[in-house]
Amino acid sequence: MAKMAVVALGGNALLRGNQKGTIEEQEQNTYETMKNLLFLIKDGYNLVISHGNGPQVGNILMRNDAGETEYGIPQMPLDICVADSQGGIGYMLQKGLRNVMNEQGIDREIISLITMVEVSEEDEAFKNPTKRVGKTYYDKSETDRLVKEKGWIFKEEVKEGKKGWRRVVPSPKPLDILNKRIVKELAESGVIVIASGGGGIPVAKKNAKLVPIEAVIDKDSASSLLARQIGADEFYILTDVPYVYLNYAEPNQKILEILDKADAEKYLNEGKFGEGNMSPKIRAAIEFVEYGGKKSVITESTKLEDKRYGTKITLNY
Amino acid sequence: MAKMAVVALGGNALLRGNQKGTIEEQEQNTYETMKNLLFLIKDGYNLVISHGNGPQVGNILMRNDAGETEYGIPQMPLDICVADSQGGIGYMLQKGLRNVMNEQGIDREIISLITMVEVSEEDEAFKNPTKRVGKTYYDKSETDRLVKEKGWIFKEEVKEGKKGWRRVVPSPKPLDILNKRIVKELAESGVIVIASGGGGIPVAKKNAKLVPIEAVIDKDSASSLLARQIGADEFYILTDVPYVYLNYAEPNQKILEILDKADAEKYLNEGKFGEGNMSPKIRAAIEFVEYGGKKSVITESTKLEDKRYGTKITLNY
Repeated sequence: MAKMAVVALGGNALLRGNQKGTIEEQEQNTYETMKNLLFLIKDGYNLVISHGNGPQVGNILMRNDAGETEYGIPQMPLDICVADSQGGIGYMLQKGLRNVMNEQGIDREIISLITMVEVSEEDEAFKNPTKRVGKTYYDKSETDRLVKEKGWIFKEEVKEGKKGWRRVVPSPKPLDILNKRIVKELAESGVIVIASGGGGIPVAKKNAKLVPIEAVIDKDSASSLLARQIGADEFYILTDVPYVYLNYAEPNQKILEILDKADAEKYLNEGKFGEGNMSPKIRAAIEFVEYGGKKSVITESTKLEDKRYGTKITLNY
Repeated sequence: MAKMAVVALGGNALLRGNQKGTIEEQEQNTYETMKNLLFLIKDGYNLVISHGNGPQVGNILMRNDAGETEYGIPQMPLDICVADSQGGIGYMLQKGLRNVMNEQGIDREIISLITMVEVSEEDEAFKNPTKRVGKTYYDKSETDRLVKEKGWIFKEEVKEGKKGWRRVVPSPKPLDILNKRIVKELAESGVIVIASGGGGIPVAKKNAKLVPIEAVIDKDSASSLLARQIGADEFYILTDVPYVYLNYAEPNQKILEILDKADAEKYLNEGKFGEGNMSPKIRAAIEFVEYGGKKSVITESTKLEDKRYGTKITLNY
């Protein structure tokens, strides 16, 4: 059977930090990112694509806030906002990849799924919500109202001399990708499947009932779980650097071309990677190879095809 | 093989006219609507569900407007807003139906797809956009700006003494449901598929390139096309009345229990049905039986199981 790859696209695959977020920018970025995936398709891989949603769901949350203030439209909870973002992004990726393949005369079907991901309400993350969502900043009166009305949790922060409250939500561990069986079957039949966007829509089981959870699942962690659950051979995490580095952006920065589990865990414990950024990617990459995957790669999408780039994460060096 | 049904849910399946649109209301409506579909599942039907998105995409458009005004977040075009709504609604339906089935110990997979639908830019509808979208009303200066900046089209309207401009978009005929092959395969294998929400995301082919189209496809028309393209046996259009009536809400109102193509076309020509409401449903129902479907039914979801209700639309009486 053809080899199966799961590719997790970073937020910057669609929207870059220095951009405003217009549709033209997002369409162009999407098109370029999809072009970088072409070689996997030409190489005959079965392919599953997951993606981040940071900037998009951020904007959706802000629009929900503004829509309530300006027009009195009830705000939707976080799970609906994540689901909305899977819709918009899943569509953009699907259309972008379709167009890139059409240019090359490649006829493979692409499908985008709305994906729920199960988490546990007993997860330790619920004791200490850390993931910032929504606008910067809420003022005291808004914060008090939202704590009372919606039970939201806020943390006081100071940034560049400005003080305010930010909403935080937990980031629990993904336990099960719902619809994994269908993702696997479709991908094995040659369909390119876009799934588990934004880490998936978090739900928990309460007496056999699925309930929505106000949380954000790390997208690399969810993508790694998906890759394991469908028995993928290779797992690619695309970000904005061509390699993982030790001491990134320090004078003693060092490229890591290959990283095995033992070294990765040592460096993680020593705090050699950025906690909010590279560490979760490395953990996701390790988990994949630990549970049967052949190879994880962390790189940027423009370097994906050129095998000289990228940090390969393996079980044993 | 098991019989296949396509059920098109009306907007009120999720949100009723007299409701504010809170998540609690939408979750409750969804749950109740899904309970009404249970008997089809118990009867062993293969099932595809499509849905409207009027109130939801209306709110998404308003939030986009407010987000730009309040926070300067670029507005997304209509295709992205429709895609977002497929995400949120597809998730709600999937979770709602999962929970209804769990209560009954039924183990069938459910999946929600982001669906693009092809239209033609040569469609007559582009000459006379009629479908109202976005807020009521824009004022003159906004209208002038949006015409200039985005090329939007507005019509001046008066309602209850209030005058203003409403944005209008074309409503072209759906030509092809992308991913229809996968919908058919999944449904035939017993998976319950949620697809073609809100009439689908309108795209057109321009030299083999898919381009987004600022339009809204009638959801009953798209659902009818989907039902035909996947070879469904039965097509159900759920709305807020138990029957189709002649002269609805007039003193001479008459229930139609069975309606064949010839009579339906005669009544349509005579203007016996509401143009913005029942007429497109009847056209969609006729098209289905005309191109090979066995039976179309128009009724409300609470009456779906009780075969005494509903208007059956057939080719010949």
